[in-house]
Amino acid sequence: MKRDLSIEGCLFRPSSIAVVGASAEVNKHSGLIQHYLRRHGYAGAIYPVNPRHREVQGEPAFPTVLDIGRHIDHAFITLPTSAVLEAVIQCGEAGIPCATILASGYAESGADGRVKQRQLIETARSYGTRLLGPNSLGLINLTDRVALSVSEVLSLPSLRSGRYSVISQSGGMMGALLSHGDARGIGFSKLVSTGNEADIGVGEIGEFLVDDPHTDVILLFLETIRNPDRMEAMVRRAHRAGKPVVAFSTARSRLGEELAVAHTGALAGGGAVMTAFLRDIGVVRVNVLEALLDIAPLLQGRRPPPAGGVSVVTTTGGGGALVVDCLSGLGVDVLAPSEKSRSQLKVRGIEVGESALVDVTLAGTNAETYGAVLQELLSASHTQAVVAVVGASSQFRPDRAVEPILAAKQASTAQALAVFLTPAADQSMELLRRHGIAVFRSPEACADAIKAYLEWQTPRSPAPPSVDLHATQALLQKIADDQLSSEDANGLLDTLGIPRAPTVLLPPSLDAWTDEQLDALRYPVVAKISAPNLVHKTELGAVALGIQTVEQLRSASRDILQRLARVRPDILVKGIEVQPMEQGLIEILIGYRDDPQVGPIIAVGLGGVLAELHRDVAISLAPVDQRTARAMLRRVRGMATILGFRNLPRGDVEALISAICKLSSLAVLRDRPILEAEINPFIVRAEGQGAIAVDILARRS
Amino acid sequence: MKRDLSIEGCLFRPSSIAVVGASAEVNKHSGLIQHYLRRHGYAGAIYPVNPRHREVQGEPAFPTVLDIGRHIDHAFITLPTSAVLEAVIQCGEAGIPCATILASGYAESGADGRVKQRQLIETARSYGTRLLGPNSLGLINLTDRVALSVSEVLSLPSLRSGRYSVISQSGGMMGALLSHGDARGIGFSKLVSTGNEADIGVGEIGEFLVDDPHTDVILLFLETIRNPDRMEAMVRRAHRAGKPVVAFSTARSRLGEELAVAHTGALAGGGAVMTAFLRDIGVVRVNVLEALLDIAPLLQGRRPPPAGGVSVVTTTGGGGALVVDCLSGLGVDVLAPSEKSRSQLKVRGIEVGESALVDVTLAGTNAETYGAVLQELLSASHTQAVVAVVGASSQFRPDRAVEPILAAKQASTAQALAVFLTPAADQSMELLRRHGIAVFRSPEACADAIKAYLEWQTPRSPAPPSVDLHATQALLQKIADDQLSSEDANGLLDTLGIPRAPTVLLPPSLDAWTDEQLDALRYPVVAKISAPNLVHKTELGAVALGIQTVEQLRSASRDILQRLARVRPDILVKGIEVQPMEQGLIEILIGYRDDPQVGPIIAVGLGGVLAELHRDVAISLAPVDQRTARAMLRRVRGMATILGFRNLPRGDVEALISAICKLSSLAVLRDRPILEAEINPFIVRAEGQGAIAVDILARRS
Repeated sequence: MKRDLSIEGCLFRPSSIAVVGASAEVNKHSGLIQHYLRRHGYAGAIYPVNPRHREVQGEPAFPTVLDIGRHIDHAFITLPTSAVLEAVIQCGEAGIPCATILASGYAESGADGRVKQRQLIETARSYGTRLLGPNSLGLINLTDRVALSVSEVLSLPSLRSGRYSVISQSGGMMGALLSHGDARGIGFSKLVSTGNEADIGVGEIGEFLVDDPHTDVILLFLETIRNPDRMEAMVRRAHRAGKPVVAFSTARSRLGEELAVAHTGALAGGGAVMTAFLRDIGVVRVNVLEALLDIAPLLQGRRPPPAGGVSVVTTTGGGGALVVDCLSGLGVDVLAPSEKSRSQLKVRGIEVGESALVDVTLAGTNAETYGAVLQELLSASHTQAVVAVVGASSQFRPDRAVEPILAAKQASTAQALAVFLTPAADQSMELLRRHGIAVFRSPEACADAIKAYLEWQTPRSPAPPSVDLHATQALLQKIADDQLSSEDANGLLDTLGIPRAPTVLLPPSLDAWTDEQLDALRYPVVAKISAPNLVHKTELGAVALGIQTVEQLRSASRDILQRLARVRPDILVKGIEVQPMEQGLIEILIGYRDDPQVGPIIAVGLGGVLAELHRDVAISLAPVDQRTARAMLRRVRGMATILGFRNLPRGDVEALISAICKLSSLAVLRDRPILEAEINPFIVRAEGQGAIAVDILARRS
Repeated sequence: MKRDLSIEGCLFRPSSIAVVGASAEVNKHSGLIQHYLRRHGYAGAIYPVNPRHREVQGEPAFPTVLDIGRHIDHAFITLPTSAVLEAVIQCGEAGIPCATILASGYAESGADGRVKQRQLIETARSYGTRLLGPNSLGLINLTDRVALSVSEVLSLPSLRSGRYSVISQSGGMMGALLSHGDARGIGFSKLVSTGNEADIGVGEIGEFLVDDPHTDVILLFLETIRNPDRMEAMVRRAHRAGKPVVAFSTARSRLGEELAVAHTGALAGGGAVMTAFLRDIGVVRVNVLEALLDIAPLLQGRRPPPAGGVSVVTTTGGGGALVVDCLSGLGVDVLAPSEKSRSQLKVRGIEVGESALVDVTLAGTNAETYGAVLQELLSASHTQAVVAVVGASSQFRPDRAVEPILAAKQASTAQALAVFLTPAADQSMELLRRHGIAVFRSPEACADAIKAYLEWQTPRSPAPPSVDLHATQALLQKIADDQLSSEDANGLLDTLGIPRAPTVLLPPSLDAWTDEQLDALRYPVVAKISAPNLVHKTELGAVALGIQTVEQLRSASRDILQRLARVRPDILVKGIEVQPMEQGLIEILIGYRDDPQVGPIIAVGLGGVLAELHRDVAISLAPVDQRTARAMLRRVRGMATILGFRNLPRGDVEALISAICKLSSLAVLRDRPILEAEINPFIVRAEGQGAIAVDILARRS
């Protein structure tokens, strides 16, 4: 093996490996590394390191890595947590460029572990040693026969190599994916368990795989996002190289999400944020685990498609209806053949109806009918993908069932093709896979893959700021408070160019109200408490609407102040804010947040408690341009009321889009001084009549 | 074979079968019946019927069934559609008690087909011949070796018998389920393709299976509901016999649902209605296809559980998190071990944390740890089910991986147990299945099965009417119109005892308004058009709110009448309805419908366009009792605002529940004279202050 001293070389193709903590017991992690390396044909040098043995599994052993006296490309440290730091120091002293750490008990286990992990990484950095892990099961390079992992899946007698690579934050799931791939006859190029990613993470490994001539598709099993910038750069690079990146993530549900204090926080939970991040950077996102293994042929050689639907052709009515139902349930448009397609087929003597499901029936299971229909659908222009469903023939006459599909696919590649077989039909599945056709054994995985393909986006373009931010930057330099005062928050809106309702702040003592202040008011007005950090003002009874006179204003303000003093005596009241009562069609919430996981995001939804209960909010990475902001509005169900629904008047959508873009441009401020900013409500009036921010809360980073 | 002349005997255990349209070609449907019957060991007499042959597949053939001259228990008619009716007549003449019809082109194909199907069934009835189909692939009885079907799955060399039975409206999916079961080592007792169910349907077949000593669980693959009463009776009987009935349905999404004209129709689409029906009659409902095959051991020997959550124990963090995420995403409560469980385990030296996921890690994959934790969780009282996740060991050391699960299951059966294996681990799956433990190969199927179990309901009790319906019945006898007038609809509310806002109907000509009418009004009032059949009044601008004076009333009424004359000149205007402006916390929609598919249902949701966009509505079979109505409210997300959310005031939930029950009692009126009745809005005031119906639309059947 020729030495390659790049990190990528030392990780994936080390010509020599030290196994630190090596043991003779092949049913222990410490014994498995050496055992698996040799079992799967590793051709380089292995140096077991163990001070208590002179020989381990037939190779001479060394007391420490410093005693080996040769160049070592990679050290796999199988020692318990307490002994790892010392081993890393020795690897550093020995000039080993790269080490994998199996032990757990680091950042994943709490505060103490975080301290230990920081020590570890600082030590390694001081020597220039790069780390995989800790809490990593290692990596498996099947192209070059480097099975450098303790994953029990390496108990398999032999491993197939292939052209998919896997990066998994969970070591167990790396093994599970390899195991299920093996059972399907799917081989892999590289598989990496990244563990805690103290140093080397998904982004960097991904970059190696983009450059790897043996990898066509990159599959990710994610639990979190640790380095969003690098990950985004990697996916952008993969996009340029024509290598699809597909992800499955376990962080989709509410459980485990921290209870968010801020309003936006509650709306934009971790799962929704990760979804927005992955979509916007151009990752294909699957939500059914086995689709991660089966989707690749659907994507290979393709680019993110324009918006569109899918057509479905079947030999079996029940199975076809099943797939249509799954697709439709996921919100995918299942479309009937176009008139053009129907007439072209009619010329060939084939009648297909106007149903969304094209059922050629059992009698049509042949090249003349099924093949012709499929070929026509694959070359049609009104859909982006086709699902071909095959019934019992796929189990008992695989050649006959598969042949028309292969022929049609060869004749037309305009659209993506997915096949769902209703029975257990391993032979047909294998045949189709061998010919590069995506095939699914469950209707749910098939529908999920189609949806994932149709929702695949080109990586976002680094959007230019839509406004001049000098004034905003200057304003923020002058603000010291974490929580911006009402005046400063209003100033923020002004510098961004977002229209807002004029506000008069009356002091908390009613006796101190001046005639000048009161004369400035235009009734009807709204009065609300001014108190930093106070959210849910309406529910607390700290807002009074429709005030017509100064007497009503005094009485309502007195009520509010008394009520708040009773229920929230902890709150520091700055006064009563009075604004003209703004009327519009709808109240919107626009929230900006510098998310700790993925960076700046912008969220838009309807204001009010109902929208929150429905979690009806669209999230994108910030900044957004007008096109993206417009697409966000279509993702909010309740927004339909102002986009042209029944006879309801249309809202001033352009004014709303403009405000979304402007607020999102906080993401491009130097040093990103704003942590969170929420306009709620943002009142949208009828088309052409503008929109206006009524309230804003903002916090510095 | 002893003759059993019951329908059940002639269907499942015929001692003699006529194959009408028999052929020698075993790759045609007409040849397959005989071929498959013999291949799978049918021991009775087979009589091929074909006028063109004297012998078919080694058996003497007859020109017609009338020429056979022996008792025939069952005729399988493989003839083309055009020849079927004649064959049924001959079967009738020959006194054959039961026939299966393969041909399609009947009710499923449109109006002509419906006529043909009616002829067919009337003819058969006139002879007392019972029919399976048309459009049926037949049935497979593996207990008694009667493979009476053309399903290609019978090409399998041999078939395993087992204790699950399948009723499938799709013939193709009957075969697919048998195929997938076979690949898993799961055997079946009986499988029936019911096709169009012109005569024998799911309910009747199910009754046979409830009585079948070889069937423990009944699995349904449904496309629609044809005889809801019989199906309900069957499931009730199965419940008494302790045989779970599980269903998967393809009619879940919007596609294919008719565009409903009525408001309630749009809210209560076909999928939601079927879901309500299956739940309320006591069917276990799965939504992932393979869960239909794998769920049975989770249910066997169990009854619908009380409300509760699930605990999850794992040897592999990634796989455990995966299942937790799937469960939580489905809204299932994943609960940490109770304090009691934690302290009991501590006594045995096992520390488990307060996380919802109990991760014993790879090191704990043994009876002492994994087994002990699992046993403790299985006997805990704060959850209803446990998911055990096992990693790589399940693939490579099945005995070791499975043993603690078997032991724990033997020690405690208090809770339902599901196992998810992360790798491809066929041996472990087989071992677990053999011991009656539910095991899943995908996290989605596992989570779906747990959810299905936790949502399993006892069949609804035939609820007594909650009100005296004599007055309602008397009122309806006097009404002739299809669409009830405002007065009659209000009268309906009055006889049901549902409070409503007093209404004054002013004539459409403003000059005709009398002082007496105007003096009766208490301002502020609401004015709206009175026009039968007019829905979406607000969107049409046909409602004016907050009218303070008679002048305002005149002007608003004039506006409404002019606008309507312009935009909907087709509408017959009866006048202007004036009501006091009712104030409350929330506007609710309560809808009753005699659904064409499942019979009377009651729906409740928030009023307004947003609730409709979110399809946030709860549906139950009507009538409902207070307990069921209360449960419905918890299923409406937006209802949270009046059930005690943050500091929002609670609504008068009891008044709402009372109205739901009363409206639902329309279902028990003699002859069910009401087709549809919708109260919208029903305004709910604060707790203790009642609730009131503001508008009602009703239609006769």
